[in-house]
Amino acid sequence: MNGQLIGRTLGYVLFLEGMAMLLPLCVCVCYQEALLPFLLPALLCFAVGFPLTRIRRQRDDFYVREGFLCVGLSWLALSLFGCLPFLISGEIPGFVDAIFETVSGFSTTGASILTNIEALSHGCLFWRSFTQWIGGIGVLVFVMAVLPVAGNRSFFILQAELPGPNVGRLVPHVRKTALILCAIYIILTMLLFVLLLLGKMNVFDAMLHSLSTAATGGFSNYNHSVAEFNSAYFEIVLIIFMLIFGVNFSFYFAVFTRRSRIAFRNEELYWYLGIVLIISLFMALALRSSHGGFWPALRPAIFQVVSIVTTTGYTTEALTPWPEILHGLLLMLMFMGGCAGSTAGGLKISRVIILLKSAFCELRMLLAPREIAPVRLSGRPVPDRLVRCILAYFFLAISFILMTTLILSLDGNDLMTNFSAALTTFFNVGPGFSRIGTLGDFSFFSPFSKLLLCVSMLLGRLEIYPMLILFFPSLWRRR
Amino acid sequence: MNGQLIGRTLGYVLFLEGMAMLLPLCVCVCYQEALLPFLLPALLCFAVGFPLTRIRRQRDDFYVREGFLCVGLSWLALSLFGCLPFLISGEIPGFVDAIFETVSGFSTTGASILTNIEALSHGCLFWRSFTQWIGGIGVLVFVMAVLPVAGNRSFFILQAELPGPNVGRLVPHVRKTALILCAIYIILTMLLFVLLLLGKMNVFDAMLHSLSTAATGGFSNYNHSVAEFNSAYFEIVLIIFMLIFGVNFSFYFAVFTRRSRIAFRNEELYWYLGIVLIISLFMALALRSSHGGFWPALRPAIFQVVSIVTTTGYTTEALTPWPEILHGLLLMLMFMGGCAGSTAGGLKISRVIILLKSAFCELRMLLAPREIAPVRLSGRPVPDRLVRCILAYFFLAISFILMTTLILSLDGNDLMTNFSAALTTFFNVGPGFSRIGTLGDFSFFSPFSKLLLCVSMLLGRLEIYPMLILFFPSLWRRR
Repeated sequence: MNGQLIGRTLGYVLFLEGMAMLLPLCVCVCYQEALLPFLLPALLCFAVGFPLTRIRRQRDDFYVREGFLCVGLSWLALSLFGCLPFLISGEIPGFVDAIFETVSGFSTTGASILTNIEALSHGCLFWRSFTQWIGGIGVLVFVMAVLPVAGNRSFFILQAELPGPNVGRLVPHVRKTALILCAIYIILTMLLFVLLLLGKMNVFDAMLHSLSTAATGGFSNYNHSVAEFNSAYFEIVLIIFMLIFGVNFSFYFAVFTRRSRIAFRNEELYWYLGIVLIISLFMALALRSSHGGFWPALRPAIFQVVSIVTTTGYTTEALTPWPEILHGLLLMLMFMGGCAGSTAGGLKISRVIILLKSAFCELRMLLAPREIAPVRLSGRPVPDRLVRCILAYFFLAISFILMTTLILSLDGNDLMTNFSAALTTFFNVGPGFSRIGTLGDFSFFSPFSKLLLCVSMLLGRLEIYPMLILFFPSLWRRR
Repeated sequence: MNGQLIGRTLGYVLFLEGMAMLLPLCVCVCYQEALLPFLLPALLCFAVGFPLTRIRRQRDDFYVREGFLCVGLSWLALSLFGCLPFLISGEIPGFVDAIFETVSGFSTTGASILTNIEALSHGCLFWRSFTQWIGGIGVLVFVMAVLPVAGNRSFFILQAELPGPNVGRLVPHVRKTALILCAIYIILTMLLFVLLLLGKMNVFDAMLHSLSTAATGGFSNYNHSVAEFNSAYFEIVLIIFMLIFGVNFSFYFAVFTRRSRIAFRNEELYWYLGIVLIISLFMALALRSSHGGFWPALRPAIFQVVSIVTTTGYTTEALTPWPEILHGLLLMLMFMGGCAGSTAGGLKISRVIILLKSAFCELRMLLAPREIAPVRLSGRPVPDRLVRCILAYFFLAISFILMTTLILSLDGNDLMTNFSAALTTFFNVGPGFSRIGTLGDFSFFSPFSKLLLCVSMLLGRLEIYPMLILFFPSLWRRR
């Protein structure tokens, strides 16, 4: 175990978090709010982070173990230091509530324990959305830069994340890959910001909504989320950008590096767009009586489908009056999630395709034992080892969600609340159904349940294994 | 495709069903009820079955395809002809209701559309329980005699079903294996019958409850199920026998053929007993306040745990007032089910163990790429191919259950009703929660939903693949 290198990495992460806190500090200056809630944690981040970055590394070995441990600890450290502004300002007084809100931010979930979001100061509102944006780019870098560095086994997870055109094969240097991804992420965020401004959204709202849309996080600074604006233009812009951020970033990467032939040989992308289209049309049909016709129902239908499938979690209206079948469909979309290699959560569409195809292959091989039927994605066979990895991941994900539902039921809430809470946190969506629906929040859960949901958000965001390693030290100790 | 052989097999199945109908006919004679409802279908079974058995087979080839098709068609034929007594007697007037009740019988589920079971004639009551008993032995023979006959691939499913001591290796002749299994099944049923009689249960009740306990089916001739007797002796006898019928039959097989060393090298058995013990104790603790102490709560707790884990579905009290967490635990037990190679449904405990171990192995291999960590069961490594088969089965099962839940929600019932209906039918348990709880029934579902639940029961009972083949003719047509 290369402790020095892990320490150094954590140091850099904290240092960067300190830097990140300077931005909400600027917001506080603009709106003449108290500076202490951000100044103090920023200084603390520097004070803890800087010495750690000075650790001299004696060895260069860095395996999957180290990588996973780094990622798991990074997200924990980010959340622990990131909740300080809420605590110091007193705007979220309890530690458990503050950590919930921060984990929900860094994991790009968007679930909130706040009953009145609009009561928060501008600084804290900015910080909430900014944590999501940081979490989003963090996940992209983790998936595309940390995972590939170590060993050939982890390559499989990378492939699971990047089943389309493989970024690793396009650009040899990991660091360069990460920088290009960051550039794409920043450019797209800026573009959304400008488009929102052009629609006459005020600067602060536009900033916040660009940040949390980019991360497919879904934090809004209004209690009624996007419904507050009541504007077709904003909704359409957000639909387009949620869709964009739900696409595998290797697509933009390939376009960016002018390899459009590779970019469009992407089976997942077509499934993604097809699913969104078909389910939106079905929903619009189901809602036509309550919304005065098919066409008026189409916009809210598409908005909700895109918001859920990309695991953003914005809402434009209350979902409770919608027919039961649509709730079921939305739950199914939560399971599915966006494309792999994006900021979206969920199982990821490419995994779902591989799961379906492998189940079908199993049947074919059963019936014709001599036939060899490999699972194919985008025309290329998927390695057996990877298929099994994804199947095992599916089992683990379902087990965690059911276990979380079970433990949450100790609080005595109804099944729909518990199940959708487990699902929405693990897949980083945000809102659920019943008591945690679009008009509800997570404030009524017991502190223990809130901490469990924090674990669920982190497990889901980091694809289980990096967090699991923190709970099974025996696995990384021996070698 | 060897059509002649399939036709012959179906003929024998129908012939045997006709024979089976002679037993309820005897019951009708005893209780001086109308004979026509059983005489007519029995004659029809002979009339259709006998000519089919006369088909001359020109070829002897019999592959997995043929085996699966046989099994799928057999269960369909059994159900179609088996529902005739209910229709002709007019005791279950609608076709959909009659087919639901019959499928629920042959699949050993025990779900009922009857609002007043006690209104049925003795003949029909006997036939209901007898269909379960036939279904139970049918599943045992299918799993232990049909699956092993064809190809090496299907051997994997067999192994999935028999992860403990492998019956196939104990006795070379499949037919002899099947006969020994039947003998064990009949002896155990008789033993239960005698023990119930010794407790002064009347002959008819004892017969019906022995038949449906042996199949872990759960049909009772009372609206209040086993609660009707209100007897500690009966409950304890039933607990013991439900437990016995939930054990892998290869255990009794090995004991029967005096290979006790092999019989007890069975990891699944110890997990099974351990899970029952621990969850029963936990439930008794949770129920101690409502049941006047830990000891009075222990019997209903054990009864419910055993009834659900073996997927029998008997009840001794209403579960609605039980704490929410216990509902969750019972749902989890439905998922798990009994041992493989028994009449119990569910995922099967050995599969759950293999799933858990393979997820853990995945993590170990990820962290130490050079380490090879095979999944082990009962001390022996489980082949990779089998692990993948089970992982894919898990994915298919979850997909079907969620899809069923989604389609059921078109009826407008609450999520708990829909989800537990999907779960309880697919895993052949019987009762569910909310509207289909211990005091409820399935009568309120729409005809379409009832047919869907029939498909779910058959899919679950036959482990998906044999039924799936009926829906994908392209898979068995070409060769």
